[in-house]
Amino acid sequence: MVAVLKHNVTPEQIQILVTWLEGQEQIVHISAGENCTVLGLIGDTKKIDIDLLEGLEIVDSVKRVNEPFKSANRKFHPDDSVIEVGGLKIGGSHFQIMAGPCSVESPEQILFIAKSVASSGASILRGGAFKPRTSPYDFQGLKADGIALLLEAKKQTGMPIVTEIMNANHIPMFEHVDIIQVGARNMQNFELLRELGGLRKPVLLKRGLANTLQELLMSAEYIMAGGNYNVILCERGIRTFETYTRNTLDLSVIPMLRELTHLPIVVDPSHATGIARLVGPMSMAAAAAGADGLIIEVHNDPKNALCDGPQSLTPEQFAELTKKVNRIREAIKE
Amino acid sequence: MVAVLKHNVTPEQIQILVTWLEGQEQIVHISAGENCTVLGLIGDTKKIDIDLLEGLEIVDSVKRVNEPFKSANRKFHPDDSVIEVGGLKIGGSHFQIMAGPCSVESPEQILFIAKSVASSGASILRGGAFKPRTSPYDFQGLKADGIALLLEAKKQTGMPIVTEIMNANHIPMFEHVDIIQVGARNMQNFELLRELGGLRKPVLLKRGLANTLQELLMSAEYIMAGGNYNVILCERGIRTFETYTRNTLDLSVIPMLRELTHLPIVVDPSHATGIARLVGPMSMAAAAAGADGLIIEVHNDPKNALCDGPQSLTPEQFAELTKKVNRIREAIKE
Amino acid sequence: MVAVLKHNVTPEQIQILVTWLEGQEQIVHISAGENCTVLGLIGDTKKIDIDLLEGLEIVDSVKRVNEPFKSANRKFHPDDSVIEVGGLKIGGSHFQIMAGPCSVESPEQILFIAKSVASSGASILRGGAFKPRTSPYDFQGLKADGIALLLEAKKQTGMPIVTEIMNANHIPMFEHVDIIQVGARNMQNFELLRELGGLRKPVLLKRGLANTLQELLMSAEYIMAGGNYNVILCERGIRTFETYTRNTLDLSVIPMLRELTHLPIVVDPSHATGIARLVGPMSMAAAAAGADGLIIEVHNDPKNALCDGPQSLTPEQFAELTKKVNRIREAIKE
Amino acid sequence: MVAVLKHNVTPEQIQILVTWLEGQEQIVHISAGENCTVLGLIGDTKKIDIDLLEGLEIVDSVKRVNEPFKSANRKFHPDDSVIEVGGLKIGGSHFQIMAGPCSVESPEQILFIAKSVASSGASILRGGAFKPRTSPYDFQGLKADGIALLLEAKKQTGMPIVTEIMNANHIPMFEHVDIIQVGARNMQNFELLRELGGLRKPVLLKRGLANTLQELLMSAEYIMAGGNYNVILCERGIRTFETYTRNTLDLSVIPMLRELTHLPIVVDPSHATGIARLVGPMSMAAAAAGADGLIIEVHNDPKNALCDGPQSLTPEQFAELTKKVNRIREAIKE
Repeated sequence: MVAVLKHNVTPEQIQILVTWLEGQEQIVHISAGENCTVLGLIGDTKKIDIDLLEGLEIVDSVKRVNEPFKSANRKFHPDDSVIEVGGLKIGGSHFQIMAGPCSVESPEQILFIAKSVASSGASILRGGAFKPRTSPYDFQGLKADGIALLLEAKKQTGMPIVTEIMNANHIPMFEHVDIIQVGARNMQNFELLRELGGLRKPVLLKRGLANTLQELLMSAEYIMAGGNYNVILCERGIRTFETYTRNTLDLSVIPMLRELTHLPIVVDPSHATGIARLVGPMSMAAAAAGADGLIIEVHNDPKNALCDGPQSLTPEQFAELTKKVNRIREAIKE
Repeated sequence: MVAVLKHNVTPEQIQILVTWLEGQEQIVHISAGENCTVLGLIGDTKKIDIDLLEGLEIVDSVKRVNEPFKSANRKFHPDDSVIEVGGLKIGGSHFQIMAGPCSVESPEQILFIAKSVASSGASILRGGAFKPRTSPYDFQGLKADGIALLLEAKKQTGMPIVTEIMNANHIPMFEHVDIIQVGARNMQNFELLRELGGLRKPVLLKRGLANTLQELLMSAEYIMAGGNYNVILCERGIRTFETYTRNTLDLSVIPMLRELTHLPIVVDPSHATGIARLVGPMSMAAAAAGADGLIIEVHNDPKNALCDGPQSLTPEQFAELTKKVNRIREAIKE
Repeated sequence: MVAVLKHNVTPEQIQILVTWLEGQEQIVHISAGENCTVLGLIGDTKKIDIDLLEGLEIVDSVKRVNEPFKSANRKFHPDDSVIEVGGLKIGGSHFQIMAGPCSVESPEQILFIAKSVASSGASILRGGAFKPRTSPYDFQGLKADGIALLLEAKKQTGMPIVTEIMNANHIPMFEHVDIIQVGARNMQNFELLRELGGLRKPVLLKRGLANTLQELLMSAEYIMAGGNYNVILCERGIRTFETYTRNTLDLSVIPMLRELTHLPIVVDPSHATGIARLVGPMSMAAAAAGADGLIIEVHNDPKNALCDGPQSLTPEQFAELTKKVNRIREAIKE
Repeated sequence: MVAVLKHNVTPEQIQILVTWLEGQEQIVHISAGENCTVLGLIGDTKKIDIDLLEGLEIVDSVKRVNEPFKSANRKFHPDDSVIEVGGLKIGGSHFQIMAGPCSVESPEQILFIAKSVASSGASILRGGAFKPRTSPYDFQGLKADGIALLLEAKKQTGMPIVTEIMNANHIPMFEHVDIIQVGARNMQNFELLRELGGLRKPVLLKRGLANTLQELLMSAEYIMAGGNYNVILCERGIRTFETYTRNTLDLSVIPMLRELTHLPIVVDPSHATGIARLVGPMSMAAAAAGADGLIIEVHNDPKNALCDGPQSLTPEQFAELTKKVNRIREAIKE
């Protein structure tokens, strides 16, 4: 950690600060120049509260040299994490496509879609049972009944399932769910993350709408600090000034996170763009940039255009897409 | 609600859509032009899922004419809401200053600050017991002990208290807390909001880092839909590209929310700017723009610079500020 | 264009507005509902100032149904534009890679790089002569001498060249330049755009840091309104809250612009990310998403690490990248 | 300047870098720790290209300790700059209100408004002659005729005038204009800024839609580097995700810029919000936060609602507002 002091600081003030820092088990190197003094701190700087240090009267700014995340950090875990999900693997060279409807609606719907996507390249079934909705007046999902329908679809197709949790009290209901999803709005629901850290089940952690990569990794750290290392990161678009797309899909996070962490990274092009016509190109781009997987919305009844969510693919479009994604995956092999 | 159709839509397609909309209890007006057709929907359009409609193959875009929030909407409640807090009022012409430390640290600290800010213009005591921290390795607050210390300070000073909740399971601990705060990161923790809707206690709802005013009002709606109308909105800065300040304080929300809603609006200049030197000017600006209150961090021990948070005022600075805020309040009186 | 009126508007006020609109050669359809009245305007609504209309006391909001861009609009020009550049084509099925140094530095440097990138897949040479720098104290480019060096490299290699203009007065110097680049900071320098509209030479128009796709297309429209239809659009990253990368590359613009416009779209992954290690993955992602070309920084002297810009590839890295991009291009062929 | 090196750097690599930096007239302090090495550079670090240094293979990150702006920097010019404008002063304790129409439309209009705003508290007349419009099809202003009308209004009322320039070639037309305005879209039109640096006339420099305070000050530096120290900074809102207001007015820039620079700071609440109803509260907030002036749109013909721009005040509203602003100015006096 490097602390830059203000330029009119007295030697006495510096001495007081250095003594205090040494009391925090830091070795302090002082670089005094004409215009400013810089302190280099060597030691376990995780103990230092950066906001507190930056707030001191005599400190101009502070720069952390080591990242504040440890369990998620590639420096301390150079190999890619490979996460096991119901007999499948994700991460390293293992790529998986998760697909299914935004919401589970009925036994027929979820089973129809499950079979359809399984036959055209998806390996994991997604489907929402608990739905975070901006409005309290909108449909909130089938809840426990939705989980039961997903489990039935899992039983009949053999596909592992992924579905979103919104409340730590619901964890018992997720006992047979293969991957628990934490949605973007709950990325910093630290109480929920901590509870998921007590499990040993894969967690798909979505990046919040306005969260930095460091914050995403710190949220992963909340789960991992509890001993649950089965974290899969998910980019699903960030909020910007642009309004043509619902969010702005930030694909540069794939190679960037690849450097920072060993955790697998999947991309959700459906929620990122909010427009079905963009899901194909963005899925291919994500695969080309090196993603470990995709999570895509596919809707059950392509003939009933009135119920077609704006971002869902038809099973036919999805089948077409998986072929292209596989060709991209072949093309980028070393 | 207005739906603009794509320009190559057939009369048959339009007819199917109109019939479906009429089945949703909508009266549909059709305006057909050379380049496009526009449908105007009259009825309870809250029943229509705007995303679903916008996603239809033949629909170009949809515009909601009525806001989706109802209980919070000034149209249906023209008078300012005045919320009672431990014998005080906030909203309408009632202005309150909440002040106190970021974290409750010890009995001496919280009592010292409580007495100090009470003597210089604060009417409500703030203090964090449960602290949402980006890192699992950072201090998470004194939790239940922190609440107990706040209640002791309330007993000794008579000040109502406001403190943050992070988990609906903790509600019983907040029984004697006067205002329950929902932090920015939990603004869309809908499960928590719903539980708070079951109480009849004031809730201070902070705007999320990247949430629009409409989303803020929809989150208020979650609480109000449960019958708890005691919602106080709080602007605390949004995330932008600018890095000099921690967040960008958006004061135009004060007059804007004033039009949209009858709920009181307070401003948190401490978290918005992250810099103590900016808290004074931004507090005065907020008062000038018509805020119903302020929530300000004040730190206990101004002599110990090492523990001075970057955004906390000393009691002396706070006392100076409240005088200026009162002068501003006088100046804007009609 | 659709104008939604406020809900307490009188029939007299509506009549005055309708009469005025009809005076502007609009046919007005009125949809009157219980809560609001909606006016549908049919006619050449480009004549209506949307800001003015939206500002009227009785108008709640206005929505343009037709896009305000005409020459750039795919609706009126369904086929892809193919732009000719020194014997090459870009757009439609024609993909070109532009490469070269950030700044032209010396005859040896530019010639070395030109030959190197030509031999490994680049077809157009890029290089900065006039450099827009945030600081007046930073190197501003070799200016006219830089143009001369680029023209010499063009002569020796036969490659067309692309370089940035910052001042319409410099147009005569660009006579033999093949593509004139307008940088992100000048995207809304309307005086410059208008002058470039008087030429018949290709213009590479970069998206501004905080400009929407509609604004980008309106800036293209400034050039095209002057009769110069040779506009190539370029995505180079937008400014967001994230700080790991210099900007956030918004690849969803590729399929989105593809729908809105017939103009070719190229991607600049070097400026978007600011990090050489991300240029490869983002180039592949751009190709997979369907870009019509790439513009990539390649630096001359890979051994002299001290002069290696943070975002420039070595010739070896560039050669490796073009192979992968070509494999992606093969994979996405129908 | 502080350079943090990567953690696996060899002593030889460090030596090469140190030697190179010393060749750039830097004194280098080395702090070597277990996990990383930090170099502190003392000297005129404006000579070091921070992007270049940050791009070196062995460098992890670089932090500038001294700001890159010099002429605009309060450190080197502790007293407030007071700028003279046609016999008036702005900056220090001098506060001025600029008012007038968005566009100059006719002799009657500009003269009517000039007299009106002069009688109710404005001291400087604003009015657009050259209008930067997003669309080439929109009204672009009266241009030279507009300047002539402004000069006539100046002659008749004695008010100094401020109007926008879009092209350095137009400078001769601005000979008798008192303050030349650079609009947000041209804030980084460095060629224009440089030309204005050659004048000795006040320049009102508006912050770009997505520009940081440092970039704003660097653009001021372009003008000041040419010897023209008469720069007035103007906050007019930044682009964020929020859509209720046109832009987000960032009032924390007032105290923040106050620390960083000695230049006067004015606020444009009309363009920032785009909504006349918000102009009053935001003007008062700006005054309370310590602005040196305001620039406000006032429209000529309040009876003709059809021509009332959405963000313009009527003369009556403006007169009411100046009274309130003056009361706020009184209230904040020490």
